[in-house]
Amino acid sequence: MERIEKEKMNDREFSDRLITEIDKKRSVAVVGLDPVYQRIPLCFREVTRGNEGDLLKAAADAIIIFNKCIIDIVEPYVPAVKPQIAFYERYGIEGIKAFVHTVEYARNKGLIVIEDAKRNDIGNTAQAYADGHIGMAKFDEGREYRVFGVDAITINPYLGSDGINPFLDTLEKYNKGIFVLVKTSNPSSSELQDIVLEDGKTKLFEYVAKIVNTWGDNFVGQRGYSSVGAVVGATFPEHARVLRSIMPKSIFLVPGYGAQGAAGKDITECFNKDGYGAIVSASRSINYPHGSDLNISEDSFKILVENAVQTMNSDISEALSGNGLLPW
Amino acid sequence: MERIEKEKMNDREFSDRLITEIDKKRSVAVVGLDPVYQRIPLCFREVTRGNEGDLLKAAADAIIIFNKCIIDIVEPYVPAVKPQIAFYERYGIEGIKAFVHTVEYARNKGLIVIEDAKRNDIGNTAQAYADGHIGMAKFDEGREYRVFGVDAITINPYLGSDGINPFLDTLEKYNKGIFVLVKTSNPSSSELQDIVLEDGKTKLFEYVAKIVNTWGDNFVGQRGYSSVGAVVGATFPEHARVLRSIMPKSIFLVPGYGAQGAAGKDITECFNKDGYGAIVSASRSINYPHGSDLNISEDSFKILVENAVQTMNSDISEALSGNGLLPW
Repeated sequence: MERIEKEKMNDREFSDRLITEIDKKRSVAVVGLDPVYQRIPLCFREVTRGNEGDLLKAAADAIIIFNKCIIDIVEPYVPAVKPQIAFYERYGIEGIKAFVHTVEYARNKGLIVIEDAKRNDIGNTAQAYADGHIGMAKFDEGREYRVFGVDAITINPYLGSDGINPFLDTLEKYNKGIFVLVKTSNPSSSELQDIVLEDGKTKLFEYVAKIVNTWGDNFVGQRGYSSVGAVVGATFPEHARVLRSIMPKSIFLVPGYGAQGAAGKDITECFNKDGYGAIVSASRSINYPHGSDLNISEDSFKILVENAVQTMNSDISEALSGNGLLPW
Repeated sequence: MERIEKEKMNDREFSDRLITEIDKKRSVAVVGLDPVYQRIPLCFREVTRGNEGDLLKAAADAIIIFNKCIIDIVEPYVPAVKPQIAFYERYGIEGIKAFVHTVEYARNKGLIVIEDAKRNDIGNTAQAYADGHIGMAKFDEGREYRVFGVDAITINPYLGSDGINPFLDTLEKYNKGIFVLVKTSNPSSSELQDIVLEDGKTKLFEYVAKIVNTWGDNFVGQRGYSSVGAVVGATFPEHARVLRSIMPKSIFLVPGYGAQGAAGKDITECFNKDGYGAIVSASRSINYPHGSDLNISEDSFKILVENAVQTMNSDISEALSGNGLLPW
């Protein structure tokens, strides 16, 4: 984790790198990596034995093995993975070590890693987050260390541009990306995000979308998309069309597919006419296709994961194709 | 970090515990612990020698020594400290180890620890954050592990009640607290937070305040205050009076004092007539009273820190006293 990385700088915009991978894999699916120890099949928990005195460490060790298995299976099928750091922080330092291992492993496999962290804070604090997650920790004499080293991170906009600018500076310097929360996939997202503003028609999330579009203006890559993306939940397809027109150059990170109830047909509005402009994320449906069958064998688990990711890809491709949006 | 803590459960509401400490210390000041390696006096960086190959570890070791020094100095004067986890995440796993050390050390000194993390996510993910930061990681057979073990955490409300309810369940179970972002102290907080809603007068932050007040209803302690607090920046005193009336039972965590420009007189509107209802946080003015004089001796640094926290206390007390608000 702690090596200096100056020689390994990305030479292209995040948005271009992501679209290249989308084309290569012919997939816009992103696999969430949201490990919950109690839901991990017992075959991945062998490491727990003898570690009963330190279940946080045991959980973290099992998570690494579990995630590597999933990454190995899904790597040929998807451009990116999206570990949600909350599920690692739950297990403390050991959990965060598992997060770092997971990120390294996925990147070494050539996958783009989008960290779902929803970080936010004011200026100098936002800079600390940006340094740690997508940038470098800086020391005297120009020494810089890569820390978490993800390709992109999700960001909450409630604090305004003070909290975004450090991320913009950092993504420009290291060719990384951010996805700003605009309209989230959960039922209560309407409580704040759907509030109607003074003009009697604009909703808060539309207002946020306009700001996000402005933030992204300076970071548009050769493929026409910005490295400043937006989180737009798949559970509200009626809003996606509006948001697509407000943010034509932003790539939408679309959660809510699978366990949260959205299907392929719900996400077509998130795409532009060129068939790009969105990536669709599923976590639980790919991580836990075995349901409550914790005694499943590793081989059977692998088959279920492969089926789940293939089904997701074909479901999305069919929906895109049906609307003339399939770009390959 | 990993011991089971069932026998150490807090027996009182977070709000009552905090007010007891306020009375004991006769102070409403909170010291932020926001370490930036380059700003730490050289006398605390002796550990760096021989560690030049791993500056993240060296930085973390220096941060632990630096924080312990500050905690030792300020402990008699303040009820609580507020480490901002971004400044630890910047240094990766080593940095987060320093965070855990700092939390443990402060709690063992009897200080209340408020983690500034501004976490937020939807249901099951918010539960993972709540477990890790203020609750317990749960395993089979009812085993539970304390992880970060802070007393309270700051939370972002943009995702609505889905993202808050797991924190409410957790704070109730373990007698912990949360502070929800309502009106932040940074200049651009107005971009979203001050937007006027459909009625032509209510601002978004006032709307959020009303929801926060409702969230706090079920968690009011014996002293009349809720364990669901609000972050209200001291840099906007004109808003504080309005927010005080909307959220009469919430304790305000008031950042923006000191380096961000607010003074004692700016924060009186954050208090109720009983002289309670707010805690005031300063970070840079207490952490870096030596400015750019990195060659300062440890003894001189200690004097500056002690002076800074005493000045803050007397400045606030004077302002409260001048308005008949000093409760002791």
